[in-house]
Order: sequence, then structure tokens, then C-alpha cells
Amino acid sequence: MSSAIKIGYPPTRNAGATRLCPIPSPLRMHRGGLLPHAQIAYETWGRLSPAKDNAVLIYTGLSPSAHAASSTEDTNPGWWEYMLGPGKPIDTNRYFVICVNSLGSCFGSTGPASINRITGQPYGVNFPELAIEDIAGGGREVVSGLGITRLHTVVGASLGGMAALAFAIAYSNEVGGLVSISAGASATPFAIAIRSLQRELIRSDPAWNHGNYSVNDPPTEGMRLARKLGLTSYRSALEWQQRFGRQRSQPKSDKVNSFDPEFEVESYLEYNAVKFAGNFDPNCYLFLSRAMDWFDVAEHGAGDLKAGFEKIKTRRNLIIGVESDFLFPIWQQEEIADILKQGQGETTFVSLPSVQGHDAFLADEARFAAVMAEFFATG
Amino acid sequence: MSSAIKIGYPPTRNAGATRLCPIPSPLRMHRGGLLPHAQIAYETWGRLSPAKDNAVLIYTGLSPSAHAASSTEDTNPGWWEYMLGPGKPIDTNRYFVICVNSLGSCFGSTGPASINRITGQPYGVNFPELAIEDIAGGGREVVSGLGITRLHTVVGASLGGMAALAFAIAYSNEVGGLVSISAGASATPFAIAIRSLQRELIRSDPAWNHGNYSVNDPPTEGMRLARKLGLTSYRSALEWQQRFGRQRSQPKSDKVNSFDPEFEVESYLEYNAVKFAGNFDPNCYLFLSRAMDWFDVAEHGAGDLKAGFEKIKTRRNLIIGVESDFLFPIWQQEEIADILKQGQGETTFVSLPSVQGHDAFLADEARFAAVMAEFFATG
Repeated sequence: MSSAIKIGYPPTRNAGATRLCPIPSPLRMHRGGLLPHAQIAYETWGRLSPAKDNAVLIYTGLSPSAHAASSTEDTNPGWWEYMLGPGKPIDTNRYFVICVNSLGSCFGSTGPASINRITGQPYGVNFPELAIEDIAGGGREVVSGLGITRLHTVVGASLGGMAALAFAIAYSNEVGGLVSISAGASATPFAIAIRSLQRELIRSDPAWNHGNYSVNDPPTEGMRLARKLGLTSYRSALEWQQRFGRQRSQPKSDKVNSFDPEFEVESYLEYNAVKFAGNFDPNCYLFLSRAMDWFDVAEHGAGDLKAGFEKIKTRRNLIIGVESDFLFPIWQQEEIADILKQGQGETTFVSLPSVQGHDAFLADEARFAAVMAEFFATG
Repeated sequence: MSSAIKIGYPPTRNAGATRLCPIPSPLRMHRGGLLPHAQIAYETWGRLSPAKDNAVLIYTGLSPSAHAASSTEDTNPGWWEYMLGPGKPIDTNRYFVICVNSLGSCFGSTGPASINRITGQPYGVNFPELAIEDIAGGGREVVSGLGITRLHTVVGASLGGMAALAFAIAYSNEVGGLVSISAGASATPFAIAIRSLQRELIRSDPAWNHGNYSVNDPPTEGMRLARKLGLTSYRSALEWQQRFGRQRSQPKSDKVNSFDPEFEVESYLEYNAVKFAGNFDPNCYLFLSRAMDWFDVAEHGAGDLKAGFEKIKTRRNLIIGVESDFLFPIWQQEEIADILKQGQGETTFVSLPSVQGHDAFLADEARFAAVMAEFFATG
């Protein structure tokens, strides 16, 4: 079902370990419509046990690829390098780990940047409306393609945490454990506001052209501004206070009223936003971002949140939140944990005092490694 | 020194109570340069006592005019209507209250939107660099123009709180009391990031034209986007959760992937941003916004914050902060109060549990009225 490929949104990176899972039948999308000829990019680490009972599926946040960690096939560090590998918290000596690039993304999986075979052009805004449930479904295609009928655990942070919840709801007999990190049963109006404005910044760039930009002339200016806004929500005010304070990055411009960046925090935003803007497809960003706003576990319970969660039949759940996260605040993690605790499974809720906000699962290696190692060492 | 005028950034509103204070000599600006022919717009309420010892000066936040409250001359409600007037917390039966439009703003005071008499064109980005200290100085011109040598109290919230601190530092013998609300001894990197991005959104609008737009074609699109970002920082995630939840404002557009606003919170942002965008001059916004980033009490103490605060000689200080404010977080109010408590004056620190975040001084009338009434009833 799979073959090694060279993928990547420009600029291309070594994607030697990434494989493709073609989806034979047209995908029936959660909000309507069919997506034919879809494929999901993924990577794996470790070995599937003969009983096929040691598989861990990881969904990513909004923007990473399936390259969660290095391997002999791709020695570049992955986005969760400290978390998985031999002897690491998700120990690949014991577990067979799969990470998928989300459906709708642009690192090998089918998304708005993919060519629509009917028109010969990228789908753009003609891609079917994308929901978190579709992303969950994309991961499940890979799992079944690998001949796995039941996952040991499904794991995700941020958008990936929502996808993990969606997986556990939709395929409740196919997963034993759930790890949801810095996610939510639904998006708060604050998070919706931040993301809605990010999308508007992309759409306001004339180069966006109602989604019909050429791959050589994407709305990078809108992406740069949108990413800056995103960055303001990924850490915490306290972390920036400690890290940047009122440090100047450069002497004030000689030009009076240039309005050029002057503070270190402004240079940090500029550097990171520029880096991102050229490395992610704007339409994919729009679709993935909106999917987060739409997600709501209550919709799986006919409007009742508890009824939605009751569909989850995992035996072990780990819900991790970060006290300084204001995009997916700690009360959202507590809400998930509190409802799951009323079910049959064993649920652990961990509130971490990390200062890194929503990004702590990437940045606070020590705290996250300890909690995850404990969960994956037992059970 | 003053005359009734008709002022206002378009669209004009009734400004019958607003008066102008011309500044005879060129203003020496804090960061260098001179500003000739400047004037400050202001309103007053109540009567100055024969001893001229009952004057309260109010500095506004970033965007309001001097019209803090209604009067017989202008019956329109002001931006702080509940706070001042006969029998109100700042009781105009007892106090003579002055509110100034900030230097650099566009409601009658001289700012980047004003005509430079030398060129016959608006100053635009050729306006001298504006600091909070200049805004404080503008208010002081009005005070001296009215023949007042010592204020009973200087009051301000947000940018106005910074201006009140700057007044108490620069004119320490001319003020007896200080009320600083939701301000800071300096801007945090988080607040700088939010404001820097707002400024970039305005400057990214092609209509901004490096500051040389015509008054008939201002960068309203950039202003609209900047205001949306501002609005995300003025309340709190919790208030929005209670107020909007996941309410839809309108049925989803029939058009697939229109990316039109769908949630109530998106409509709220759009409505308020559009309303603001046509009512404030973009260059003025840039200058006032940047002034907040630059302000730092430590600069008045040769780099030492405590030394900066030691210049303040007020006998009574009231420092109010709001627990849900993440633009000027509560620890910044506590910092001001803690340092002032080491001085000679009597300092009261009040931490309010309002849910309205940075805007609570406008929105949480009950809590703010009680605290302010107590301060102004005594002393």
C-alpha cells in the first residue's frame, strides 16, 4: 500500500521516511461531499508486534508534517523528537508509532494544495469543507491500511488532540487508550476570534485572489501577518516577559517614524513568521484553521456534550493541560477529564505549570516527557 | 484661552462642550523636535473652587475624545458617563473635572492628522515622535492655562494611566493624588507584540501609502483589521465564553467555503471594527500606539524603576487592576503599588475580579464606581 516518496511544500525537505497511503474509495466527508483519489502521508517508528496490539497513532497540530521524529531513513530531527524513539517516553522499542500528516495539509496528504485530477488545477477553495472528523478518518485509513484493527493508543496535541477525540468517538472499538494534550471539546470564542482573524489576514492579501493563487505567487504577506498573530497565542505573556522583557533587538532606526521593529519580541515574531509563510500552503491553512473552530464533541451527542463523550470507550485516558495556555485554557482540559471520569475508563488529568503556554508540549520537554513516559510505561 | 468649537474626526459629532487650549510656545517633545502651534482639546465639569484646589485631570485611553461625560453643553453620553457628574464617583458638585484629548489624537488636539502650517498638509508621519510624556505635558498646558497650579488628583486608565504616571513624575509638585487604572510602569512584550502587529496591519494597507493618504481615502481596511486584533485583547476569554459561547450569528452561507463569519464572536468583531475604522485617524493611531510601547518609568530613574517612581510625590495613590486583564496584567498594577508603598504617600491597591479584562473600567460600572467613589469621597 505504500512507497517511499519525495514530498513537501516548497521548499522541499528530505522526506525519505514518509510513505503514502492511497485511499481507494472516494472519502465521504463529514460535512458533505466526496473526495476521490485521496492519500495520507505518514511515517512509522518501531515494529508492529505479531499480535498487532502495540500501535500508537499520533495526530499533529495545525502545521507539522508526519515527520515527528528522526529515523535511519530520515535523520532530520522531527517536530516531537524528544517524545518518541528508542528509550523515549513513547518508546519505539516497545510501541509501533504512526504519525500522519493531516488530511487537508500540504506535506503529502491530500488537501486544498493538491491537484484536482478533474481540472488539473489545485483544489483551492473548491476542496470539500474539511472537518476534524475527516482528519481523524484520514488517520484511520492509514491504520487499517497497515492491517491494524485496534490501536493501543491514539495521541494528539492541539488540533491533533481534537482529532484524537474525534477518532475515539467515531471508532470507539478500535482504540484502547486516548491521550489528549492542550486540546478542547470545542473551540472557545476567544480561539475562534484569533483564528478567524488569521484567516481574514490571509484572505485580505490581494495575492490570495479568492483562493486562486498560483503556486509561484502565494499570499505570503497575508500568511506572514497571520502567523504573527498565531505566535502571539502560542506562548504566554509571562514567558515573553522572562525571555524578551523590554530588550531592544536593534538600535532605533535613524529614520524618524519608520515604525521599524525595535524590540526583541518584534524581531522574534518577524523572523518566525517569515520562516513559516514560505513553508505552508495558505489555502490548507484556511481549511485546517476553520476545522478547529467547527469541532464540537457535543455535535456527536445531538447537542449534549456528555452524550458525545459517552461514545468514547477507551480504557485509559490521559488528559494534559497547561496552566499558562490561553488558546486552549486549562478549564477545557479539565472539562474533558471530568466528563471522561464519569465513564468506564481510567482517566488521569494532569495540569502542568509550564510557562510556555499552548506550545508547552513542544517546548517543555522535561515536564511532558515525565508525564507521557509514565503513561506509556504502564498499561 | 478657550473658545467653543466644532471638532471631530469625520463623521463629526456634536462637540459643543469641547474647548481648545492653544499652546503659545513650540512644544519641546520628549524624544526630540519641536511642535509649533499646538493645541489641546478639553472639556470641564463642575466649578473650580476659589482656592483652585479641587481640580481633577483625566487622561483617556488610546482612542476616546475629551467628552468623558455629558453636560448641559453636550448632552451626548460620554465615554466615562457613569464615573463623573453630580453625585457620581468623581462628584462634580465637589470637584472641577478636566478631561483632555491626548496630544497626538484626532479629536481637536494637535496630532498627525492636523495640518502642518508650513506645508498646508497633514503632518502624517512627519509629526514629531510622540511619547506618553508629551501627552502628559499636553494635559498640563490645559491645567496651567486654567490658572491651576496644583491638581487635586490626576486620573487615567490604560494609556491614560501611563500619562497620569508621567504627569506625577514630571510635575511632582503640581499634583496631590494619583489614580492609575489598568496601566503599567512599562509595556510588556506581549502588549508590544499585539500593538506592533496592529500597527503593521495599518501600514500593510496599500491605502496607508507610507502615511501620505488623503483624508478621503484613509486605510480603513488596515484600521478595521487592527481594531479586530485590539478587540481580542480588551476583554477576556472568559467573558466571551459567557457572552458568545459557540452561538452562531447567522446560518452558514450557502456558498461552500465562503469563509464568511459564522459565529457570534466574529460578527461582534466585525461590527465593532467597522464602526471604529471610520472614526479614528490611522496615523494618530500609529503614534499613540507606539507611545505606549516606548513608555517606561525606569527611564525616569536612569534605568532604575524604583528611582523613576521616587520622583512621584503624591500624598494619596489609588492603583486599580483587573484580574482578567491580560494586556496590562494585574502583576503590573501590583508592581506600581508595591513601589509607591515604599514612598511617603498613602497607596491603596485594588485588584478587581471583573470578567471584562482590560475594558473593565468602562464596562464594570458597579465595581469601579464603588472603588473610585470611596477614594474621591475622602481626602
